[in-house]
Amino acid sequence: MYELRGLNEECGLFGIWGHPEASELTYMALHSLQHRGQEGAGIVASGGDYLFGARGMGLLTEALSQTQLESLKPFSKSIGHVRYATSGSSALSNVQPFLFKSHTGDLGLAHNGNIVNALQIRRALEDDGAIFQTTSDSEVFAHLLRRAKGPSRKARIKTTLQQLKGAFAFVILHEDAMTVALDDHGVRPLMLGMLDGAYCVASETCAFTAIGAEYIRDLEPGELITISDDGIDFDRYTDFENPNMCSMEYIYFARADSEFRGTSTYTIRKALGEELAKEMDVKADIVIGVPDSSLAAAKGFSDESGIPGEQGLLKNRYVGRTFIASGQEARERAVRMKLSPVRDIVEGRSIIVIDDSIVRGTTSKYIVKALKKAGAKEVHMGVSSPPLKNPCYYGIDVSTHAEIIASSKSTEEVRAEIGADSLTYLSVERMHQVYEKYGSRGQCDACFTGNYPIENTDGLLPQEKDAKTKGV
Amino acid sequence: MYELRGLNEECGLFGIWGHPEASELTYMALHSLQHRGQEGAGIVASGGDYLFGARGMGLLTEALSQTQLESLKPFSKSIGHVRYATSGSSALSNVQPFLFKSHTGDLGLAHNGNIVNALQIRRALEDDGAIFQTTSDSEVFAHLLRRAKGPSRKARIKTTLQQLKGAFAFVILHEDAMTVALDDHGVRPLMLGMLDGAYCVASETCAFTAIGAEYIRDLEPGELITISDDGIDFDRYTDFENPNMCSMEYIYFARADSEFRGTSTYTIRKALGEELAKEMDVKADIVIGVPDSSLAAAKGFSDESGIPGEQGLLKNRYVGRTFIASGQEARERAVRMKLSPVRDIVEGRSIIVIDDSIVRGTTSKYIVKALKKAGAKEVHMGVSSPPLKNPCYYGIDVSTHAEIIASSKSTEEVRAEIGADSLTYLSVERMHQVYEKYGSRGQCDACFTGNYPIENTDGLLPQEKDAKTKGV
Amino acid sequence: MYELRGLNEECGLFGIWGHPEASELTYMALHSLQHRGQEGAGIVASGGDYLFGARGMGLLTEALSQTQLESLKPFSKSIGHVRYATSGSSALSNVQPFLFKSHTGDLGLAHNGNIVNALQIRRALEDDGAIFQTTSDSEVFAHLLRRAKGPSRKARIKTTLQQLKGAFAFVILHEDAMTVALDDHGVRPLMLGMLDGAYCVASETCAFTAIGAEYIRDLEPGELITISDDGIDFDRYTDFENPNMCSMEYIYFARADSEFRGTSTYTIRKALGEELAKEMDVKADIVIGVPDSSLAAAKGFSDESGIPGEQGLLKNRYVGRTFIASGQEARERAVRMKLSPVRDIVEGRSIIVIDDSIVRGTTSKYIVKALKKAGAKEVHMGVSSPPLKNPCYYGIDVSTHAEIIASSKSTEEVRAEIGADSLTYLSVERMHQVYEKYGSRGQCDACFTGNYPIENTDGLLPQEKDAKTKGV
Amino acid sequence: MYELRGLNEECGLFGIWGHPEASELTYMALHSLQHRGQEGAGIVASGGDYLFGARGMGLLTEALSQTQLESLKPFSKSIGHVRYATSGSSALSNVQPFLFKSHTGDLGLAHNGNIVNALQIRRALEDDGAIFQTTSDSEVFAHLLRRAKGPSRKARIKTTLQQLKGAFAFVILHEDAMTVALDDHGVRPLMLGMLDGAYCVASETCAFTAIGAEYIRDLEPGELITISDDGIDFDRYTDFENPNMCSMEYIYFARADSEFRGTSTYTIRKALGEELAKEMDVKADIVIGVPDSSLAAAKGFSDESGIPGEQGLLKNRYVGRTFIASGQEARERAVRMKLSPVRDIVEGRSIIVIDDSIVRGTTSKYIVKALKKAGAKEVHMGVSSPPLKNPCYYGIDVSTHAEIIASSKSTEEVRAEIGADSLTYLSVERMHQVYEKYGSRGQCDACFTGNYPIENTDGLLPQEKDAKTKGV
Repeated sequence: MYELRGLNEECGLFGIWGHPEASELTYMALHSLQHRGQEGAGIVASGGDYLFGARGMGLLTEALSQTQLESLKPFSKSIGHVRYATSGSSALSNVQPFLFKSHTGDLGLAHNGNIVNALQIRRALEDDGAIFQTTSDSEVFAHLLRRAKGPSRKARIKTTLQQLKGAFAFVILHEDAMTVALDDHGVRPLMLGMLDGAYCVASETCAFTAIGAEYIRDLEPGELITISDDGIDFDRYTDFENPNMCSMEYIYFARADSEFRGTSTYTIRKALGEELAKEMDVKADIVIGVPDSSLAAAKGFSDESGIPGEQGLLKNRYVGRTFIASGQEARERAVRMKLSPVRDIVEGRSIIVIDDSIVRGTTSKYIVKALKKAGAKEVHMGVSSPPLKNPCYYGIDVSTHAEIIASSKSTEEVRAEIGADSLTYLSVERMHQVYEKYGSRGQCDACFTGNYPIENTDGLLPQEKDAKTKGV
Repeated sequence: MYELRGLNEECGLFGIWGHPEASELTYMALHSLQHRGQEGAGIVASGGDYLFGARGMGLLTEALSQTQLESLKPFSKSIGHVRYATSGSSALSNVQPFLFKSHTGDLGLAHNGNIVNALQIRRALEDDGAIFQTTSDSEVFAHLLRRAKGPSRKARIKTTLQQLKGAFAFVILHEDAMTVALDDHGVRPLMLGMLDGAYCVASETCAFTAIGAEYIRDLEPGELITISDDGIDFDRYTDFENPNMCSMEYIYFARADSEFRGTSTYTIRKALGEELAKEMDVKADIVIGVPDSSLAAAKGFSDESGIPGEQGLLKNRYVGRTFIASGQEARERAVRMKLSPVRDIVEGRSIIVIDDSIVRGTTSKYIVKALKKAGAKEVHMGVSSPPLKNPCYYGIDVSTHAEIIASSKSTEEVRAEIGADSLTYLSVERMHQVYEKYGSRGQCDACFTGNYPIENTDGLLPQEKDAKTKGV
Repeated sequence: MYELRGLNEECGLFGIWGHPEASELTYMALHSLQHRGQEGAGIVASGGDYLFGARGMGLLTEALSQTQLESLKPFSKSIGHVRYATSGSSALSNVQPFLFKSHTGDLGLAHNGNIVNALQIRRALEDDGAIFQTTSDSEVFAHLLRRAKGPSRKARIKTTLQQLKGAFAFVILHEDAMTVALDDHGVRPLMLGMLDGAYCVASETCAFTAIGAEYIRDLEPGELITISDDGIDFDRYTDFENPNMCSMEYIYFARADSEFRGTSTYTIRKALGEELAKEMDVKADIVIGVPDSSLAAAKGFSDESGIPGEQGLLKNRYVGRTFIASGQEARERAVRMKLSPVRDIVEGRSIIVIDDSIVRGTTSKYIVKALKKAGAKEVHMGVSSPPLKNPCYYGIDVSTHAEIIASSKSTEEVRAEIGADSLTYLSVERMHQVYEKYGSRGQCDACFTGNYPIENTDGLLPQEKDAKTKGV
Repeated sequence: MYELRGLNEECGLFGIWGHPEASELTYMALHSLQHRGQEGAGIVASGGDYLFGARGMGLLTEALSQTQLESLKPFSKSIGHVRYATSGSSALSNVQPFLFKSHTGDLGLAHNGNIVNALQIRRALEDDGAIFQTTSDSEVFAHLLRRAKGPSRKARIKTTLQQLKGAFAFVILHEDAMTVALDDHGVRPLMLGMLDGAYCVASETCAFTAIGAEYIRDLEPGELITISDDGIDFDRYTDFENPNMCSMEYIYFARADSEFRGTSTYTIRKALGEELAKEMDVKADIVIGVPDSSLAAAKGFSDESGIPGEQGLLKNRYVGRTFIASGQEARERAVRMKLSPVRDIVEGRSIIVIDDSIVRGTTSKYIVKALKKAGAKEVHMGVSSPPLKNPCYYGIDVSTHAEIIASSKSTEEVRAEIGADSLTYLSVERMHQVYEKYGSRGQCDACFTGNYPIENTDGLLPQEKDAKTKGV
């Protein structure tokens, strides 16, 4: 399959404690989080004495069979995970939630993010006799916890979390409790909700909508929540807090109906489009958005600029795996099968196309070409985020195979490359104004600015780290 | 899988003659026609002396393996088909194109539509010694042609077509020619195009866009075109002509970028939305469309009414097969997993929701409920087509399991059933005005009015006919 | 998979009328007939008003799913088929029983054998308007029957059978009767049995053993039996009779416990071994048989000659599909994985190896080499059948890819080729003496002598005929 | 599937160092060891810097795809494993060889046997911070080795092995060496061979035959062999030695052509049959063996007693998975599909049936019944081993679901239960005489006598231990 998206989120999480339909709800919630990871999925449930699990490769509907789901039905506490994997490590053994068995009790573990000192910890643990099961950086949590000393499990979890650096949202299942933790920068989203009196957590609120749960609030950076039959315990694993939520969650990853601090991504994207309109001084007949993720920004742009919005590009909803011949011609055909211009809307008009980001430039180039072939007089490209220039160390896979076009090229060079008549990016400042307006306590913008909020101790990209830990 | 659509198109066709990448192009074209049929797909290609074929069940990407496609690569002439099948007859033997072998030459056959005297013909043929391979009404064509007398193959094809009543678009492959025919009412669409000097035909122009072909023109009712290495031959199989294209093609089935007589479905749907706005005298804060097929109508409604449009409903793009528990609760969950409201857009507002049609009312009911749960003050439903009341005999499957809600209920009763604050349908007259404005020569409106342009000789619905011919 | 057998039977049949577990029994019976065909299997059952069927590719356990079997459980009348297919035509559409639907009643058809005027009939039928579904010669029966005139179905079946030449055992299912017919030369075996008062038929009696049925008798050449709820009707479709049962059934195909006229194949093979001992004047320390099919002949040889028998060759019972690299080395490895010498039995001894036949010589060559490598002083090859020299037109596939070694080489040349110290075949006369002793009324020996009892009207081998009828 | 065998071996091993076709040879060798385990298979190969592996569930041909094999082709050092798993733990994660990754070097591990202090070690390791990946007792080796101190890897391996109690044959792969070890009782077989100058090891010599390798010798109890590019190093991990090879390997598990100290299992089984004949004072017309594993004993019995041997029972070579209805009737049908009497051999005769063992008695009961139904006058059962009475702690799975019939019943009671006219077991003394005659240095007979040579420290059967370590 041609993956035309250039950025890949690394996971979606869900957990629910004490609901008679826990596994079915987890399945539905994961289904709504599918956009956060399509290469593997799993569920781990607590049966009281032991944990039980099912995992598989591919989309949720491929990964878990009905038989597997049936086997988990008796249990009222469960956590789930959908995973995006870099190609090299797409092994079943890396699919989460992990399930660690022990005579002192089992551990289920679901992680979203990237731990930037995982390799250092791993090597130290191996030198101390530990054997790792996976190439995932998430596994260090389990080993540290196993070896942690402390008067209570919560104390040992705190000790463990304090040793980790990086971006992490954890949902942890023991036979008798579900523990939820967010790193002290709050890079990845994690939400608390409730259904029929049962607490649940999810990477995005769209999971709550899918199961009919009520959204309670976003987790705070550094927060540690324990949910058990005794109720909910709110705590922190650290006093430090430096809010730096990933800006790309707003711009690109989250589903448009997911809310952050009560505002939908749709609304934020519309606002980003409005800001872009203030910066982009271009006359045109119509504004069109690249479906689906940029339609909101295009709407905001149209509202602000007064230029009518139209659906000038359509997305084929049957994408899935397609056969691919090799070569450039084949690649172009693949894009053509995915996005089509509406000729009579486009023909003879000057057009502003709004996209949420440009990674490699391949799709933008096709869009410009296709619109011009369909008769567009002019094609101006507006991007509702700043130029993407730097890799992410906190859980986003920026493909190393394809260059990030803006990391080496100026805006004018990018414009020339994609063939647009003009190209305008949103400024970093305006972007932050939008976030602040909607209540953000601080956003990571490292991929735009290079200002990394957390030191990358291991000094490696996720995919490089992967190569260091495996040979399979 | 919960199929939430209430209407199902029965096929998409493609054919190309004399292009070195014929089978690959056919595959891509079928991919773009996938919305016309998801239960089976196939390709038949001419190798000069024999025809070769590959068929399978499910979506195109499941139905045909790369190995099968490779085996067809040497051939420069091929036809393809995607199929929707009623549940009873979803056997591989019914997947098209059919491939009939004979010592006098092979026949490949792809059909879209429904032949309303097929059962009568079939019984007469069986009484005369014929053995049918399938439960499909399309097969009568092959038997009639096999037995037809006449000085030339074209003469025999004309004789055969003259015996058929109903709706049919045929793409027929012999070793040395591709023949394309449209019934004399022109109920189903069929388009002529060209790529690199090779003629091609398709049910919709989006297939041409997908492969980079140029659209030439729509076929006329009664037209018979023969394409061979000697070039193209334009003819008719009958002098009679009574244009009655299916209105639902515009409203519901065709992809928004597909064009009819040079106008995109998007534009026509927008116009239907504009007309609806003239009829629907309702005040509201925002207009939202049900994605994806009703976004154009909502845009037209917004433009005409001046009420701002928003994306207040989102569609989960990972649908596919999901596990389904039984019962009403499970069914509601399935809809919830597919469509979600954007809360902060909806909350506290009175809303007009535009949908292109209401079949069973299930989805409409969910939408109203979901929007109100998300805080909508009022929900007014606007339908950009007249009330759907009657079954179709010409190739559309209206499920018999679920009632067509408007066939037995008044508009007020439907409104009450779905819980909307008001419900307005487009009038038949305004609908026809739109079609006429965009060059239609005549549209079938039987499903709205009961005025059937072609007598249903067999006197059965397609699914009933199916039951008469099979026991498998 | 390397198929090391050089000859392939083309089918196994079963049918049972009026037993509450008909489909389960048919499945078990087919399982016991699996040696007669491994490339496809199917069952057709009568539900009273319609016939219902399930078919698939591969071994029985792969071909039919539990779900399919469950769907046939309600029915008390069913027929089944296992099929060997030449590589070219291994399509699902050729897997039997065929199921032909018609408004005048359905037809299930299972055939073992080869109709030598099928191509002529097929062409005549095609010229008269018939359309064939398969490349199988069995299908002509259905078309002829459909067109046959006559006062009763039995009369029409007789008329149809009289038009066929060649080898055929048919088990035919209509909603209200099961009809069983054997060609007037009786080339293929067909047995009548009974279980719990229900009549059943099978290609071999081992199917009766498998289900616990009683064997009644062999069908006679030309016999036509009709079984219905009214009981059993014994008749003939022709007065002509010329018994010519395939000799290879005794020598090679039938399971050792299957009986013909009350004598097991095991006993007949032992007798063939005894006769071979009388002709083979060789001194040796031990006699070993090639497992499994030649163990009986080796036993007979040992008894007659007084030379002790041993199991000096073992067969790996896990054969199945193995990965195969190409080339001669790979082929040798494949044989080595299938047959192994027992070194300490073989070492230092002169050995007589008994095999039932030599087709291409590949296996014999390996056996001699392997035994010598294991330390055998001398290896003498005794074959319990005459030299195989001629192709079969009556339902046995002699691969055209590999030469039949004895058709072009003398016995001395074959001996040299396989590397044995001596090579002795059984004479045609002694072979016939054995058959006569055990009550045979006449055996076809065409593959040894070239005396074909039935003219091959089409003039083609089965695999050539296949090529004439298909391009898939 | 009905597993009619009552005993299950727990593994087959192979390893080869320094052959250009290592993985292909490993695949072929595992194929020949398939009888030792059918529920999972895997190969791990050394690429110099890392180890690479492929594993899967089921028979070898299902477990490993051609693609997986291709991926291992570049490597010249590899080890392989076929596994039998008790039903509870048949998870992919338990399929061997295990592959443990570490920054200090990878470890591949293949084990046959059962470690009787594994649970104790495991708990101690967990309490010290270890996390286990599997429920297999083999994994303790990896953890102990990881934590072992010592000047060299060999020293650390010795230290590790010295901590283990029980039956174990290990084949261990590091990037730069293959290490082979046998427990100091030598319970499980392990053989050293050579092909084209490359050393190889296997559970049985039949693996050498399959790949054309030369058999060098059996490993001695306590032996530790290291094979690397520097050649072979023979050593011991302990001075203690108490030879107690599993008697069931001779009687039941090993392939008949596999050799122990230069004698084939076939020859030993024949000798066991001869001894049985001396003890069994029964007159009969013929002797028949239960195929395949008891044919050799029947041959020995016939030679010694002078009673003619015949093949009176046949085994259906298409077994595989069959659909099974529940209940006793269905179970009987399953046996009937597997073993069939040859009626005309059996009828009217008094018969001695030789079987190698009786576990639950189900098959014996069917055999007696089937032979009598086929007309046998008398059926006397001779068993070429002593009564099986006790569970095995060293790697043989004696099903707990079915009772071992002789553990609670006297020989006369067993005879009555299976319906035989007489029942004779071989005595323990005569059994040992045979083993001594063929050079055995000592055999474990605990399953017959209850004299366990190694204390079962964990105090559990393998399947009970499994339940202690897992909840999946």
